[in-house]
Amino acid sequence: MKNIGLFVGSLRRASYNKKIAQYLCRIAPEGFKYSIISIEDLPLYNQDFDDDGDVPKSYQDFRAQIAKLDGFIFITPEYNRSVPAVLKNALDVGSRPYGKNGWNGKPGAVISSTPGNLGAFGANHHLRQSLVFLNVLIMQQPEAYISNMKDIFDDEGNPSSTSSTDFFKQFVKAFAEWVNQVT
Amino acid sequence: MKNIGLFVGSLRRASYNKKIAQYLCRIAPEGFKYSIISIEDLPLYNQDFDDDGDVPKSYQDFRAQIAKLDGFIFITPEYNRSVPAVLKNALDVGSRPYGKNGWNGKPGAVISSTPGNLGAFGANHHLRQSLVFLNVLIMQQPEAYISNMKDIFDDEGNPSSTSSTDFFKQFVKAFAEWVNQVT
Amino acid sequence: MKNIGLFVGSLRRASYNKKIAQYLCRIAPEGFKYSIISIEDLPLYNQDFDDDGDVPKSYQDFRAQIAKLDGFIFITPEYNRSVPAVLKNALDVGSRPYGKNGWNGKPGAVISSTPGNLGAFGANHHLRQSLVFLNVLIMQQPEAYISNMKDIFDDEGNPSSTSSTDFFKQFVKAFAEWVNQVT
Amino acid sequence: MKNIGLFVGSLRRASYNKKIAQYLCRIAPEGFKYSIISIEDLPLYNQDFDDDGDVPKSYQDFRAQIAKLDGFIFITPEYNRSVPAVLKNALDVGSRPYGKNGWNGKPGAVISSTPGNLGAFGANHHLRQSLVFLNVLIMQQPEAYISNMKDIFDDEGNPSSTSSTDFFKQFVKAFAEWVNQVT
Repeated sequence: MKNIGLFVGSLRRASYNKKIAQYLCRIAPEGFKYSIISIEDLPLYNQDFDDDGDVPKSYQDFRAQIAKLDGFIFITPEYNRSVPAVLKNALDVGSRPYGKNGWNGKPGAVISSTPGNLGAFGANHHLRQSLVFLNVLIMQQPEAYISNMKDIFDDEGNPSSTSSTDFFKQFVKAFAEWVNQVT
Repeated sequence: MKNIGLFVGSLRRASYNKKIAQYLCRIAPEGFKYSIISIEDLPLYNQDFDDDGDVPKSYQDFRAQIAKLDGFIFITPEYNRSVPAVLKNALDVGSRPYGKNGWNGKPGAVISSTPGNLGAFGANHHLRQSLVFLNVLIMQQPEAYISNMKDIFDDEGNPSSTSSTDFFKQFVKAFAEWVNQVT
Repeated sequence: MKNIGLFVGSLRRASYNKKIAQYLCRIAPEGFKYSIISIEDLPLYNQDFDDDGDVPKSYQDFRAQIAKLDGFIFITPEYNRSVPAVLKNALDVGSRPYGKNGWNGKPGAVISSTPGNLGAFGANHHLRQSLVFLNVLIMQQPEAYISNMKDIFDDEGNPSSTSSTDFFKQFVKAFAEWVNQVT
Repeated sequence: MKNIGLFVGSLRRASYNKKIAQYLCRIAPEGFKYSIISIEDLPLYNQDFDDDGDVPKSYQDFRAQIAKLDGFIFITPEYNRSVPAVLKNALDVGSRPYGKNGWNGKPGAVISSTPGNLGAFGANHHLRQSLVFLNVLIMQQPEAYISNMKDIFDDEGNPSSTSSTDFFKQFVKAFAEWVNQVT
């Protein structure tokens, strides 16, 4: 069984991205377990924590969690044409202390979404640039830019259209193949 | 007198970027007052705060502060090829609630720095992409990519070389001209 | 009268971006003359041309043309998530020989368009990154990401909807104000 | 034997990037053959060529060449903070006609270089953004940003320092492992 962590870039209670994450957890392919990893309680990264050996408990727990994962899916809105702080913070916390990059060498994927109509493209690719440095082996295709999020899920949290259902199912299938290809 | 806020993208006590900010405060051109604006106490942005009308005091104070500024200088390290969470968070907090973008229409500049040797290019340009959306009128030239930060300042916090001194003085002069050009 | 050059990033006869450019020429605000500048005959940039003093006639003519302009509008499709070669080539040719950047210090704007649905965001912002270095004073807002280009113009080359008409008119008005603000 | 194509983003006779490519050809690991693929004679991409069925001979030859390759290394300078037109053009030509992306699914790597000191970071990552869409399986680490190119090679075209020699040897070794990992 491969454990995949889902990281959601929005703290809003009714977050669209959380809906995507919850739905993906229900359709994880055979042989894969998807879990949402909480990132909201991580204090803003400060290198002094690590240098002083005064590492917040939440950092320790988070780093221990990602160490056990076999892959990552990042699901992000776009704030001001880039990645929300909460998600960038999780990347940074997981990448330190120096020499202990917890993301290193594992497979990953990116989904960006927006209530607007540009697919949160800016957040998607800024995230990818960070993931080069972190050596996360990111799936290139299919890209996932989800626009008009208000219409994508119904009240039960299932996709409202078969085209959306098909897209998400095809995405998790492609990611399973990618994970198997690189690990 | 024009008030320019300096925003530093690192929380580390001995932050190199703080050193740049402190030095710039001392060499602000005539007619300009430079002040460092604290961004470390802003909780990770959550839209629920604004939607619920339960806005943290620190958000309110920060938004009030940027409303009084005549321009902005962003001084940033690079974390994982992008902007540190603490600085992105400040941008996001200052840009909301929807319809009240506190950065809107004012002049700005970007400085990126690194103890390494690529000038924190990735952070510099990711920041610029956000500032397009925020409608900050960013100075294009001179760009400021400061590498090898360990050698740039002496123990009194002054540049160790005349070339660095000249660069910073020319930068604040160019920014003064840019502010006057667009306001 | 201010002369604005329009640069179109597609060579296709029936180019959507050419349609945008042609329409903008017809709605240039009072005091502005818009002209499409041909970039299709510029050979791929090779620094040897300039170093050897063996500069193609087309380069000389193009550089002379941009020297006479008071501002620039770049209208670009997206090829493979970035700027088409033909437009990047024009930027490069106009920026050389070293020390003679023909774009330097003049106002500009970016419009990106696509028959798809992501607004050619990738091309838009890659172009903006080059324009930082070239010191083109780019208008930040409004951004212009035009999706679904098949439906935007009618057979006479006018916008099919009042919302599109309004957007383009507001765009050229905002650009006129920006040109006046910075020059 | 795996055939790797090297694509050089500069047409200059004395191109630094060509030097890198030539050196890499000499140190290709066992089981790999490196060849430089010429991209200088490709006319600026125009979709009409493909739509009209009037495809330049150079396009046909280039597309046939990349079809035979088992992987790609892109070696690029930075022009105006982005990818030179000649290299972007090759990417675009190889990606069409629609539905026949010649780069699809094969492994690749990026090297950027500059006589300056920022490692041509901008070109490196703009290229990577295109390669996401083209579904080239790009090696994340090691990144290769080569600064101060004037000092990197001696007159025989070998690295002047053991650290450069080590870097390039480690790079081609890592790429060999990456190719084997994903194919």
